[in-house]
Amino acid sequence: MKTKAYAIQAPGGNAEPFYYEKAIGEKDVLVRINYCSVTRGDVQIADNDWGDTKFPVVPGHEITGIVEDAGPGVTSLKRGDRVGIGYQLEACFNCQFCHEGTEQFCPHQKVVAVDYYGGWAEHIIVDERFAFRLPERLDEMVAVPLMSSGLTVYAAIVRADLPENATAAVLGIGGLGQLAIQFLHKMGHRVVAFSHTPGKRKLIEQFGGEYADNSDPSDVDVHNRKLDFILSTLNADFDFEAYLKMLKPQGKFCFVAQPLNKLRLSAGLLYDYAARTVYGNYTGSRKEMTAMLAFSAHHHIEVPTEVLPFSKINEAVETVRNGKVNTKIVLKN
Amino acid sequence: MKTKAYAIQAPGGNAEPFYYEKAIGEKDVLVRINYCSVTRGDVQIADNDWGDTKFPVVPGHEITGIVEDAGPGVTSLKRGDRVGIGYQLEACFNCQFCHEGTEQFCPHQKVVAVDYYGGWAEHIIVDERFAFRLPERLDEMVAVPLMSSGLTVYAAIVRADLPENATAAVLGIGGLGQLAIQFLHKMGHRVVAFSHTPGKRKLIEQFGGEYADNSDPSDVDVHNRKLDFILSTLNADFDFEAYLKMLKPQGKFCFVAQPLNKLRLSAGLLYDYAARTVYGNYTGSRKEMTAMLAFSAHHHIEVPTEVLPFSKINEAVETVRNGKVNTKIVLKN
Repeated sequence: MKTKAYAIQAPGGNAEPFYYEKAIGEKDVLVRINYCSVTRGDVQIADNDWGDTKFPVVPGHEITGIVEDAGPGVTSLKRGDRVGIGYQLEACFNCQFCHEGTEQFCPHQKVVAVDYYGGWAEHIIVDERFAFRLPERLDEMVAVPLMSSGLTVYAAIVRADLPENATAAVLGIGGLGQLAIQFLHKMGHRVVAFSHTPGKRKLIEQFGGEYADNSDPSDVDVHNRKLDFILSTLNADFDFEAYLKMLKPQGKFCFVAQPLNKLRLSAGLLYDYAARTVYGNYTGSRKEMTAMLAFSAHHHIEVPTEVLPFSKINEAVETVRNGKVNTKIVLKN
Repeated sequence: MKTKAYAIQAPGGNAEPFYYEKAIGEKDVLVRINYCSVTRGDVQIADNDWGDTKFPVVPGHEITGIVEDAGPGVTSLKRGDRVGIGYQLEACFNCQFCHEGTEQFCPHQKVVAVDYYGGWAEHIIVDERFAFRLPERLDEMVAVPLMSSGLTVYAAIVRADLPENATAAVLGIGGLGQLAIQFLHKMGHRVVAFSHTPGKRKLIEQFGGEYADNSDPSDVDVHNRKLDFILSTLNADFDFEAYLKMLKPQGKFCFVAQPLNKLRLSAGLLYDYAARTVYGNYTGSRKEMTAMLAFSAHHHIEVPTEVLPFSKINEAVETVRNGKVNTKIVLKN
């Protein structure tokens, strides 16, 4: 069938109507898109920031909508089901990673914008195994940021395998950080949110976190060797070693975003009297997606969101392109 | 009682006879030292390489010997028992870490050379909980390198929680690396040993490893995204990112030694399509010490060793100070 989408034709260009043909395969569902976000990552792809974007590109990897049709082999979904779709669209389901339930590492996977057209569109056709039924209590609009940002930080936190009532810190209080504070708080941990924006204190506290000023040395020192876990969502440079020192012995530091420049690190900080761990997290598995959606529905995880109609897509792109956006921007069909 | 030891009185000085008094406490054992190694770490402390050595210092943290006397509260050891002693001499047994069986992180711990006199001596008095009974089949001389190097790399490997039949690499084929190859091989893993010294090929193969030339790009490329685990024992600089890329998704890189300069690292290498982990390991717990000694006795773990009498202590120190030593140097009383 023919799908209407919004494509960027060249680096930095506008999103313009774009039509492509795709048949509904044996295991595919056709989803009418109701909501899709415009994220920093989408705009970085549109702007060819990493130099490997293939144009025309249709970004959009946080999608919710309704199943409108299904291939003959589809067993888990039916017409009318409310679903969410994230970054990953396909996996081989036959490699070591797929067998182990970590299909996000499948070498044959297909992901939005890199391998196929994404959610800036009226419809998307996707393997039923990557269309996740939304829990009843989870609003379609509220679910949007969960489909990629939510999965990434939830899986990052689960991998830390924290003790009960741990003390955690979150660096960077944008979309990822706002979700991380809520997940950690609702899991029963104490959460310190490092920011240099006093204006974010209220939001942080509303999410169950404690505001700490990362430009105030006394706020930094007080946490020395006190934290079990730090999650960094920062894409600006920061003093990595200062934060590493805040970790208790066996504490863990997780990156879900990359600072501008390379990190500099004394390896000794990882072991001397400490045995600390640094890891990166990359999206999550299907199993983690399902768990995260259930957790989010149960605990009312939600970030501030601004909804615009798809007709204002270029306004949305410009807003993300030009500034620091602390509100999730979501398009509505 | 009065103990005869060998102390360094000033940075870079010779080891000279030195006497100190210590009483045998309630829970202490008096151990007659039969063997103690001279390691790179000992000489770095003697030379005040880190600027914090307190003189006079008695290094020596890989010790084996015989229990000669025991305090009234000692329950686990008796006169005549063969024991090994490592880096740690005391812990509070009352803090969170001690309660969790990770007493190597106890903030009140005492360790050789930093807090007390070590094994370059005729005797040592130590808490029975840090004198480990040697398994029957484990030779006192063979056990020496296990007491610190062995514990460090064994615990590092255990923490990786590797899948069965994993593929691992070891960087640096000195004392730590030689033990790591054997542990990994005997645990059932494939082991690639990166070296730029073709002369080490025979030893590596004898330990069950495969020699790979780290200066040959084809030897490096062939491992791209293929390894589950890399253990670095290098104290020279190396291309950290090139090795990180060799790790499979969810692969782990462990440091047990610190390169000369800070590492440089793109955080994205930790997460993009990968979710890799980097950690440092610092000695090990008492439980790991006991497990490592049993494993080593069962699997005949042994590294090439040169034994010298304590009277040649300064010859031993000079050998370690001046060169690349690939043979463990052990002093015998």
